[in-house]
Amino acid sequence: MIKEELGIEPLVVQTMADKVEESLGKYLREKGFKAGDLLPREVELAEALGVSRNVVREALSRFKMLGIIESKKKRGMVLTVPKVTVAFEKVADPYLLDKVSKNDLFELRLILELGMANVLFVRKNEADLDLLEEIIEKEARAENEMERILCDVEFHSILYKMTGNKTLIKFQKLLLPVFEHVVEYEGEHGISDRGTVSHPDLLDILRNGSPEEFREAMAKHLEPHLNHIKAAQ
Amino acid sequence: MIKEELGIEPLVVQTMADKVEESLGKYLREKGFKAGDLLPREVELAEALGVSRNVVREALSRFKMLGIIESKKKRGMVLTVPKVTVAFEKVADPYLLDKVSKNDLFELRLILELGMANVLFVRKNEADLDLLEEIIEKEARAENEMERILCDVEFHSILYKMTGNKTLIKFQKLLLPVFEHVVEYEGEHGISDRGTVSHPDLLDILRNGSPEEFREAMAKHLEPHLNHIKAAQ
Repeated sequence: MIKEELGIEPLVVQTMADKVEESLGKYLREKGFKAGDLLPREVELAEALGVSRNVVREALSRFKMLGIIESKKKRGMVLTVPKVTVAFEKVADPYLLDKVSKNDLFELRLILELGMANVLFVRKNEADLDLLEEIIEKEARAENEMERILCDVEFHSILYKMTGNKTLIKFQKLLLPVFEHVVEYEGEHGISDRGTVSHPDLLDILRNGSPEEFREAMAKHLEPHLNHIKAAQ
Repeated sequence: MIKEELGIEPLVVQTMADKVEESLGKYLREKGFKAGDLLPREVELAEALGVSRNVVREALSRFKMLGIIESKKKRGMVLTVPKVTVAFEKVADPYLLDKVSKNDLFELRLILELGMANVLFVRKNEADLDLLEEIIEKEARAENEMERILCDVEFHSILYKMTGNKTLIKFQKLLLPVFEHVVEYEGEHGISDRGTVSHPDLLDILRNGSPEEFREAMAKHLEPHLNHIKAAQ
Protein backbone atom coordinates (compact mmCIF):
# COMPACT_ATOMS: atom_id res chain seq x y z
CA MET A 1 0.00 0.00 0.00
CA ILE A 2 2.08 2.90 -1.28
CA LYS A 3 -0.35 5.56 0.00
CA GLU A 4 -0.01 4.33 3.54
CA GLU A 5 3.79 4.16 3.35
CA LEU A 6 3.90 7.75 2.20
CA GLY A 7 1.38 8.83 4.82
CA ILE A 8 -0.64 10.63 2.17
CA GLU A 9 -4.42 10.77 2.49
CA PRO A 10 -6.19 9.71 -0.70
CA LEU A 11 -7.91 12.62 -2.44
CA VAL A 12 -11.65 12.80 -2.02
CA VAL A 13 -13.04 12.66 -5.54
CA GLN A 14 -15.55 15.44 -6.02
CA THR A 15 -17.92 15.65 -8.95
CA MET A 16 -18.45 18.98 -10.67
CA ALA A 17 -21.78 19.36 -8.85
CA ASP A 18 -20.07 18.74 -5.49
CA LYS A 19 -17.58 21.50 -6.28
CA VAL A 20 -20.22 23.95 -7.43
CA GLU A 21 -22.35 23.10 -4.36
CA GLU A 22 -19.37 23.98 -2.18
CA SER A 23 -18.51 27.16 -4.08
CA LEU A 24 -22.09 28.37 -4.08
CA GLY A 25 -22.39 27.84 -0.33
CA LYS A 26 -19.19 29.78 0.20
CA TYR A 27 -20.31 32.53 -2.17
CA LEU A 28 -23.64 33.06 -0.36
CA ARG A 29 -21.88 33.20 2.98
CA GLU A 30 -19.12 35.56 1.89
CA LYS A 31 -21.50 37.92 0.13
CA GLY A 32 -23.61 38.01 3.31
CA PHE A 33 -26.85 36.71 1.75
CA LYS A 34 -29.65 36.54 4.31
CA ALA A 35 -33.00 34.72 4.37
CA GLY A 36 -35.34 36.37 1.84
CA ASP A 37 -32.53 37.72 -0.37
CA LEU A 38 -32.83 37.13 -4.09
CA LEU A 39 -30.05 35.01 -5.63
CA PRO A 40 -28.33 35.96 -8.89
CA ARG A 41 -29.78 34.22 -11.94
CA GLU A 42 -28.55 30.77 -12.97
CA VAL A 43 -26.75 32.17 -16.02
CA GLU A 44 -24.95 34.78 -13.92
CA LEU A 45 -23.85 32.21 -11.38
CA ALA A 46 -22.61 29.94 -14.18
CA GLU A 47 -20.55 32.77 -15.63
CA ALA A 48 -19.16 33.83 -12.25
CA LEU A 49 -18.14 30.28 -11.41
CA GLY A 50 -16.94 29.51 -14.95
CA VAL A 51 -19.07 26.41 -15.27
CA SER A 52 -22.05 25.27 -17.37
CA ARG A 53 -25.60 26.24 -16.48
CA ASN A 54 -26.49 22.55 -16.16
CA VAL A 55 -24.12 22.01 -13.29
CA VAL A 56 -25.28 25.21 -11.56
CA ARG A 57 -28.85 23.98 -11.89
CA GLU A 58 -27.79 20.66 -10.36
CA ALA A 59 -26.22 22.36 -7.33
CA LEU A 60 -29.20 24.69 -6.90
CA SER A 61 -31.49 21.69 -7.07
CA ARG A 62 -29.64 20.16 -4.12
CA PHE A 63 -30.09 23.38 -2.13
CA LYS A 64 -33.77 23.42 -3.02
CA MET A 65 -34.22 19.89 -1.76
CA LEU A 66 -32.65 20.82 1.58
CA GLY A 67 -34.85 23.90 1.89
CA ILE A 68 -31.86 26.26 1.74
CA ILE A 69 -33.28 28.08 -1.28
CA GLU A 70 -36.79 28.43 -2.67
CA SER A 71 -38.17 29.33 -6.08
CA LYS A 72 -40.50 32.33 -5.94
CA LYS A 73 -42.92 32.85 -8.82
CA LYS A 74 -41.86 35.72 -11.09
CA ARG A 75 -39.01 36.67 -8.72
CA GLY A 76 -36.45 33.88 -8.97
CA MET A 77 -34.68 32.04 -6.20
CA VAL A 78 -34.44 33.36 -2.65
CA LEU A 79 -32.43 32.15 0.33
CA THR A 80 -34.56 30.57 3.07
CA VAL A 81 -34.05 29.33 6.61
CA PRO A 82 -33.82 25.54 6.33
CA LYS A 83 -35.57 23.35 8.88
CA VAL A 84 -32.88 21.22 10.52
CA THR A 85 -35.06 18.17 10.18
CA VAL A 86 -35.84 18.46 6.44
CA ALA A 87 -32.53 16.91 5.43
CA PHE A 88 -32.78 14.26 8.11
CA GLU A 89 -36.21 13.34 6.76
CA LYS A 90 -34.67 12.33 3.44
CA VAL A 91 -32.47 9.61 4.90
CA ALA A 92 -34.28 8.54 8.09
CA ASP A 93 -35.98 5.82 6.14
CA PRO A 94 -36.09 2.29 7.55
CA TYR A 95 -35.68 0.99 4.01
CA LEU A 96 -32.38 2.82 3.53
CA LEU A 97 -30.79 2.53 6.97
CA ASP A 98 -28.79 -0.44 8.16
CA LYS A 99 -29.38 -2.24 11.44
CA VAL A 100 -26.61 -0.45 13.31
CA SER A 101 -28.06 2.99 12.49
CA LYS A 102 -31.52 1.85 13.48
CA ASN A 103 -30.24 0.59 16.83
CA ASP A 104 -28.32 3.86 17.31
CA LEU A 105 -31.52 5.79 16.71
CA PHE A 106 -33.51 3.63 19.10
CA GLU A 107 -30.89 4.24 21.79
CA LEU A 108 -31.14 7.94 21.00
CA ARG A 109 -34.86 7.76 21.69
CA LEU A 110 -34.24 6.25 25.14
CA ILE A 111 -31.62 8.92 25.88
CA LEU A 112 -34.01 11.71 24.84
CA GLU A 113 -36.87 10.42 26.99
CA LEU A 114 -34.58 9.92 29.99
CA GLY A 115 -33.22 13.43 29.57
CA MET A 116 -36.30 15.51 28.81
CA ALA A 117 -37.60 15.86 32.40
CA ASN A 118 -36.37 19.40 33.14
CA VAL A 119 -37.68 20.81 29.87
CA LEU A 120 -41.00 19.01 30.39
CA PHE A 121 -41.47 20.56 33.82
CA VAL A 122 -40.75 24.03 32.46
CA ARG A 123 -43.18 23.75 29.52
CA LYS A 124 -45.97 21.41 30.76
CA ASN A 125 -49.51 22.78 30.66
CA GLU A 126 -52.93 21.58 31.81
CA ALA A 127 -54.24 20.88 28.31
CA ASP A 128 -51.41 18.45 27.57
CA LEU A 129 -51.72 16.77 30.96
CA ASP A 130 -55.44 16.25 30.28
CA LEU A 131 -54.54 14.76 26.92
CA LEU A 132 -52.24 12.27 28.66
CA GLU A 133 -55.11 11.43 31.00
CA GLU A 134 -57.38 10.69 28.04
CA ILE A 135 -54.80 8.41 26.44
CA ILE A 136 -54.41 6.51 29.69
CA GLU A 137 -58.18 5.97 29.82
CA LYS A 138 -58.19 4.80 26.22
CA GLU A 139 -55.29 2.46 26.98
CA ALA A 140 -57.21 0.92 29.88
CA ARG A 141 -60.05 0.14 27.47
CA ALA A 142 -57.72 -1.28 24.77
CA GLU A 143 -58.94 -4.67 23.61
CA ASN A 144 -55.84 -5.97 21.92
CA GLU A 145 -52.07 -5.56 21.72
CA MET A 146 -52.23 -3.35 18.62
CA GLU A 147 -54.56 -0.84 20.30
CA ARG A 148 -52.33 -0.85 23.35
CA ILE A 149 -49.19 -0.17 21.27
CA LEU A 150 -50.92 2.73 19.52
CA CYS A 151 -51.83 4.25 22.91
CA ASP A 152 -48.24 3.80 24.04
CA VAL A 153 -46.91 5.59 20.95
CA GLU A 154 -49.48 8.35 21.47
CA PHE A 155 -48.55 8.81 25.14
CA HIS A 156 -44.85 9.17 24.38
CA SER A 157 -45.54 11.45 21.41
CA ILE A 158 -47.43 13.83 23.70
CA LEU A 159 -44.38 13.96 25.98
CA TYR A 160 -42.27 15.15 23.04
CA LYS A 161 -44.96 17.68 22.14
CA MET A 162 -44.92 18.96 25.73
CA THR A 163 -41.22 19.87 25.45
CA GLY A 164 -42.29 22.65 23.06
CA ASN A 165 -39.04 22.02 21.18
CA LYS A 166 -40.03 21.98 17.49
CA THR A 167 -36.83 20.29 16.33
CA LEU A 168 -37.24 17.53 18.90
CA ILE A 169 -40.92 17.04 18.01
CA LYS A 170 -40.19 16.72 14.30
CA PHE A 171 -37.27 14.42 15.04
CA GLN A 172 -39.51 12.03 16.98
CA LYS A 173 -42.11 11.95 14.20
CA LEU A 174 -39.43 11.04 11.68
CA LEU A 175 -38.04 8.35 13.92
CA LEU A 176 -41.32 6.52 14.52
CA PRO A 177 -41.10 4.32 11.38
CA VAL A 178 -37.49 3.49 12.21
CA PHE A 179 -38.56 2.12 15.58
CA GLU A 180 -40.95 -0.38 14.06
CA HIS A 181 -38.15 -2.88 13.51
CA VAL A 182 -37.18 -2.62 17.20
CA VAL A 183 -40.76 -3.22 18.28
CA GLU A 184 -40.81 -6.29 16.02
CA TYR A 185 -37.47 -7.54 17.30
CA GLU A 186 -38.41 -7.10 20.93
CA GLY A 187 -41.76 -8.75 20.33
CA GLU A 188 -39.96 -11.79 18.87
CA HIS A 189 -37.54 -11.91 21.80
CA GLY A 190 -40.21 -11.54 24.45
CA ILE A 191 -39.01 -8.15 25.62
CA SER A 192 -41.91 -6.24 27.09
CA ASP A 193 -41.77 -2.47 26.91
CA ARG A 194 -43.55 -2.20 30.23
CA GLY A 195 -41.33 -1.52 33.20
CA THR A 196 -42.48 -1.35 36.80
CA VAL A 197 -43.57 2.27 36.35
CA SER A 198 -46.75 2.76 34.31
CA HIS A 199 -48.17 5.66 32.29
CA PRO A 200 -50.51 6.67 35.14
CA ASP A 201 -47.46 6.82 37.49
CA LEU A 202 -45.63 9.08 35.00
CA LEU A 203 -48.64 11.38 34.68
CA ASP A 204 -49.00 11.59 38.46
CA ILE A 205 -45.37 12.70 38.77
CA LEU A 206 -45.81 15.22 35.94
CA ARG A 207 -48.73 16.72 37.87
CA ASN A 208 -47.38 16.58 41.42
CA GLY A 209 -43.72 15.62 41.33
CA SER A 210 -40.30 16.95 40.35
CA PRO A 211 -37.94 16.54 37.38
CA GLU A 212 -35.74 14.29 39.55
CA GLU A 213 -38.65 11.96 40.30
CA PHE A 214 -39.72 11.96 36.66
CA ARG A 215 -36.22 11.02 35.47
CA GLU A 216 -36.02 8.05 37.80
CA ALA A 217 -39.58 6.97 37.02
CA MET A 218 -38.86 7.13 33.28
CA ALA A 219 -35.71 5.04 33.79
CA LYS A 220 -37.90 2.37 35.46
CA HIS A 221 -40.55 2.72 32.75
CA LEU A 222 -37.94 2.11 30.03
CA GLU A 223 -36.04 -0.49 32.05
CA PRO A 224 -36.78 -3.48 29.76
CA HIS A 225 -35.16 -1.62 26.84
CA LEU A 226 -32.22 -0.47 28.96
CA ASN A 227 -31.67 -4.02 30.18
CA HIS A 228 -31.69 -5.18 26.60
CA ILE A 229 -28.87 -2.75 25.74
CA LYS A 230 -26.92 -4.06 28.72
CA ALA A 231 -27.48 -7.69 27.75
CA ALA A 232 -26.38 -7.00 24.16
CA GLN A 233 -22.97 -5.71 25.28
CA MET B 1 -60.60 33.43 0.66
CA ILE B 2 -62.33 31.02 -1.69
CA LYS B 3 -60.02 28.11 -0.90
CA GLU B 4 -60.86 28.26 2.76
CA GLU B 5 -64.57 28.44 2.09
CA LEU B 6 -64.36 25.37 -0.07
CA GLY B 7 -62.20 23.59 2.48
CA ILE B 8 -59.72 22.62 -0.23
CA GLU B 9 -56.04 22.35 0.66
CA PRO B 10 -53.81 24.28 -1.76
CA LEU B 11 -51.75 21.97 -3.98
CA VAL B 12 -48.11 21.63 -3.06
CA VAL B 13 -46.21 22.77 -6.13
CA GLN B 14 -43.60 20.21 -7.04
CA THR B 15 -40.87 20.82 -9.58
CA MET B 16 -40.08 18.12 -12.12
CA ALA B 17 -36.98 17.18 -10.12
CA ASP B 18 -39.09 16.81 -6.95
CA LYS B 19 -41.43 14.45 -8.79
CA VAL B 20 -38.61 12.40 -10.31
CA GLU B 21 -36.88 12.27 -6.90
CA GLU B 22 -40.07 10.83 -5.44
CA SER B 23 -40.67 8.36 -8.28
CA LEU B 24 -37.08 7.14 -8.22
CA GLY B 25 -37.23 6.55 -4.46
CA LYS B 26 -40.44 4.59 -4.90
CA TYR B 27 -38.99 2.64 -7.85
CA LEU B 28 -35.89 1.56 -5.90
CA ARG B 29 -38.03 0.46 -2.97
CA GLU B 30 -40.59 -1.43 -5.03
CA LYS B 31 -37.97 -3.21 -7.11
CA GLY B 32 -36.27 -4.25 -3.86
CA PHE B 33 -32.89 -2.63 -4.58
CA LYS B 34 -30.41 -3.25 -1.76
CA ALA B 35 -27.12 -1.60 -0.76
CA GLY B 36 -24.48 -2.49 -3.36
CA ASP B 37 -26.97 -3.07 -6.18
CA LEU B 38 -26.26 -1.43 -9.52
CA LEU B 39 -28.85 1.09 -10.69
CA PRO B 40 -30.17 1.17 -14.27
CA ARG B 41 -28.40 3.71 -16.48
CA GLU B 42 -29.56 7.32 -16.58
CA VAL B 43 -30.97 6.92 -20.08
CA GLU B 44 -32.94 3.82 -19.10
CA LEU B 45 -34.39 5.57 -16.04
CA ALA B 46 -35.34 8.58 -18.18
CA GLU B 47 -37.16 6.32 -20.63
CA ALA B 48 -38.93 4.35 -17.91
CA LEU B 49 -40.11 7.52 -16.19
CA GLY B 50 -40.89 9.32 -19.46
CA VAL B 51 -38.77 12.36 -18.60
CA SER B 52 -35.60 13.96 -19.90
CA ARG B 53 -32.15 12.74 -18.93
CA ASN B 54 -31.39 16.15 -17.43
CA VAL B 55 -34.09 15.88 -14.83
CA VAL B 56 -33.09 12.30 -13.98
CA ARG B 57 -29.52 13.49 -13.52
CA GLU B 58 -30.81 16.23 -11.21
CA ALA B 59 -32.70 13.75 -9.03
CA LEU B 60 -29.75 11.34 -8.95
CA SER B 61 -27.51 14.23 -7.96
CA ARG B 62 -29.72 14.84 -4.93
CA PHE B 63 -29.46 11.17 -3.94
CA LYS B 64 -25.70 11.33 -4.37
CA MET B 65 -25.46 14.35 -2.07
CA LEU B 66 -27.39 12.49 0.63
CA GLY B 67 -25.18 9.43 0.30
CA ILE B 68 -28.08 7.27 -0.90
CA ILE B 69 -26.28 6.39 -4.14
CA GLU B 70 -22.63 6.39 -5.13
CA SER B 71 -20.84 6.52 -8.49
CA LYS B 72 -18.51 3.58 -8.95
CA LYS B 73 -15.77 3.87 -11.55
CA LYS B 74 -16.51 1.82 -14.67
CA ARG B 75 -19.59 0.26 -13.03
CA GLY B 76 -22.15 3.02 -12.76
CA MET B 77 -24.26 4.02 -9.79
CA VAL B 78 -24.89 1.73 -6.84
CA LEU B 79 -27.25 2.05 -3.90
CA THR B 80 -25.48 2.70 -0.60
CA VAL B 81 -26.41 2.87 3.08
CA PRO B 82 -26.65 6.58 3.91
CA LYS B 83 -25.28 7.89 7.17
CA VAL B 84 -28.18 9.48 9.03
CA THR B 85 -26.03 12.45 9.88
CA VAL B 86 -24.80 13.26 6.34
CA ALA B 87 -27.97 15.11 5.42
CA PHE B 88 -28.10 16.84 8.78
CA GLU B 89 -24.55 18.05 8.21
CA LYS B 90 -25.68 20.03 5.17
CA VAL B 91 -28.09 22.25 7.08
CA ALA B 92 -26.71 22.29 10.65
CA ASP B 93 -24.82 25.43 9.81
CA PRO B 94 -24.97 28.36 12.20
CA TYR B 95 -24.99 30.67 9.18
CA LEU B 96 -28.18 29.12 7.78
CA LEU B 97 -30.16 28.41 10.95
CA ASP B 98 -32.34 30.93 12.71
CA LYS B 99 -32.19 31.66 16.42
CA VAL B 100 -35.14 29.44 17.31
CA SER B 101 -33.55 26.38 15.70
CA LYS B 102 -30.25 27.12 17.41
CA ASN B 103 -31.96 27.35 20.80
CA ASP B 104 -33.85 24.12 20.04
CA LEU B 105 -30.57 22.39 19.30
CA PHE B 106 -28.93 23.71 22.44
CA GLU B 107 -31.84 22.37 24.49
CA LEU B 108 -31.43 19.08 22.66
CA ARG B 109 -27.83 18.97 23.85
CA LEU B 110 -28.90 19.40 27.47
CA ILE B 111 -31.54 16.68 27.07
CA LEU B 112 -28.99 14.29 25.55
CA GLU B 113 -26.45 14.82 28.33
CA LEU B 114 -29.10 14.46 31.03
CA GLY B 115 -30.34 11.26 29.43
CA MET B 116 -27.14 9.43 28.48
CA ALA B 117 -26.31 8.02 31.93
CA ASN B 118 -27.54 4.45 31.43
CA VAL B 119 -25.82 4.02 28.09
CA LEU B 120 -22.61 5.55 29.54
CA PHE B 121 -22.54 3.04 32.38
CA VAL B 122 -23.03 0.15 29.98
CA ARG B 123 -20.25 1.24 27.58
CA LYS B 124 -17.70 3.04 29.78
CA ASN B 125 -14.15 1.70 29.75
CA GLU B 126 -10.92 2.44 31.61
CA ALA B 127 -9.19 4.12 28.67
CA ASP B 128 -11.95 6.72 28.33
CA LEU B 129 -12.11 7.32 32.08
CA ASP B 130 -8.34 7.94 32.06
CA LEU B 131 -8.85 10.37 29.20
CA LEU B 132 -11.39 12.29 31.28
CA GLU B 133 -8.84 12.34 34.13
CA GLU B 134 -6.23 13.88 31.81
CA ILE B 135 -8.65 16.58 30.64
CA ILE B 136 -9.47 17.44 34.25
CA GLU B 137 -5.75 17.85 35.00
CA LYS B 138 -5.32 20.01 31.93
CA GLU B 139 -8.34 22.09 32.97
CA ALA B 140 -6.83 22.67 36.42
CA ARG B 141 -3.71 24.07 34.74
CA ALA B 142 -5.70 26.27 32.31
CA GLU B 143 -4.41 29.83 32.36
CA ASN B 144 -7.32 31.63 30.74
CA GLU B 145 -11.02 31.35 29.97
CA MET B 146 -10.44 30.15 26.40
CA GLU B 147 -8.27 27.25 27.54
CA ARG B 148 -10.88 26.38 30.15
CA ILE B 149 -13.71 26.41 27.58
CA LEU B 150 -11.73 24.13 25.29
CA CYS B 151 -11.22 21.66 28.16
CA ASP B 152 -14.94 21.81 28.91
CA VAL B 153 -15.83 21.02 25.30
CA GLU B 154 -13.29 18.20 25.29
CA PHE B 155 -14.67 16.69 28.51
CA HIS B 156 -18.24 16.64 27.22
CA SER B 157 -17.14 15.32 23.81
CA ILE B 158 -15.51 12.33 25.52
CA LEU B 159 -18.81 11.60 27.26
CA TYR B 160 -20.51 11.38 23.86
CA LYS B 161 -17.69 9.18 22.58
CA MET B 162 -18.16 6.89 25.62
CA THR B 163 -21.77 6.17 24.63
CA GLY B 164 -20.36 4.22 21.67
CA ASN B 165 -23.37 5.43 19.67
CA LYS B 166 -21.92 6.55 16.31
CA THR B 167 -24.99 8.55 15.31
CA LEU B 168 -24.95 10.41 18.60
CA ILE B 169 -21.20 11.08 18.37
CA LYS B 170 -21.47 12.50 14.86
CA PHE B 171 -24.50 14.54 15.88
CA GLN B 172 -22.57 16.19 18.70
CA LYS B 173 -19.64 17.05 16.41
CA LEU B 174 -22.01 18.72 13.95
CA LEU B 175 -23.71 20.66 16.70
CA LEU B 176 -20.56 22.17 18.22
CA PRO B 177 -20.42 25.20 15.87
CA VAL B 178 -24.14 25.82 16.45
CA PHE B 179 -23.49 26.11 20.18
CA GLU B 180 -21.00 28.89 19.78
CA HIS B 181 -23.75 31.52 19.64
CA VAL B 182 -25.18 30.20 22.93
CA VAL B 183 -21.77 30.39 24.60
CA GLU B 184 -21.47 33.97 23.35
CA TYR B 185 -24.98 34.87 24.52
CA GLU B 186 -24.51 33.36 27.94
CA GLY B 187 -21.13 35.07 28.29
CA GLU B 188 -22.78 38.42 27.58
CA HIS B 189 -25.56 37.73 30.09
CA GLY B 190 -23.24 36.55 32.84
CA ILE B 191 -24.50 32.96 32.79
CA SER B 192 -21.76 30.67 33.98
CA ASP B 193 -21.81 27.11 32.67
CA ARG B 194 -20.46 25.81 35.96
CA GLY B 195 -23.01 24.34 38.28
CA THR B 196 -22.32 23.09 41.78
CA VAL B 197 -21.12 19.74 40.43
CA SER B 198 -17.70 19.80 38.75
CA HIS B 199 -16.01 17.60 36.15
CA PRO B 200 -14.01 15.77 38.87
CA ASP B 201 -17.32 14.98 40.65
CA LEU B 202 -18.78 13.59 37.42
CA LEU B 203 -15.72 11.42 36.83
CA ASP B 204 -15.84 10.11 40.38
CA ILE B 205 -19.46 9.03 39.87
CA LEU B 206 -18.62 7.43 36.52
CA ARG B 207 -15.92 5.37 38.28
CA ASN B 208 -17.71 4.50 41.51
CA GLY B 209 -21.37 5.52 41.23
CA SER B 210 -24.60 4.59 39.49
CA PRO B 211 -26.56 5.90 36.49
CA GLU B 212 -29.07 7.45 38.93
CA GLU B 213 -26.32 9.39 40.69
CA PHE B 214 -24.81 10.45 37.39
CA ARG B 215 -28.15 11.76 36.08
CA GLU B 216 -28.69 13.92 39.15
CA ALA B 217 -25.08 15.12 39.19
CA MET B 218 -25.32 16.08 35.50
CA ALA B 219 -28.55 18.00 36.22
CA LYS B 220 -26.64 19.99 38.84
CA HIS B 221 -23.66 20.41 36.51
CA LEU B 222 -25.92 21.84 33.78
CA GLU B 223 -28.10 23.78 36.24
CA PRO B 224 -27.14 27.29 35.05
CA HIS B 225 -28.36 26.40 31.51
CA LEU B 226 -31.52 24.74 32.82
CA ASN B 227 -32.27 27.78 34.97
CA HIS B 228 -31.83 29.95 31.92
CA ILE B 229 -34.48 27.94 30.04
CA LYS B 230 -36.80 28.34 33.02
CA ALA B 231 -36.21 32.09 33.21
CA ALA B 232 -36.84 32.51 29.46
CA GLN B 233 -40.35 31.01 29.74
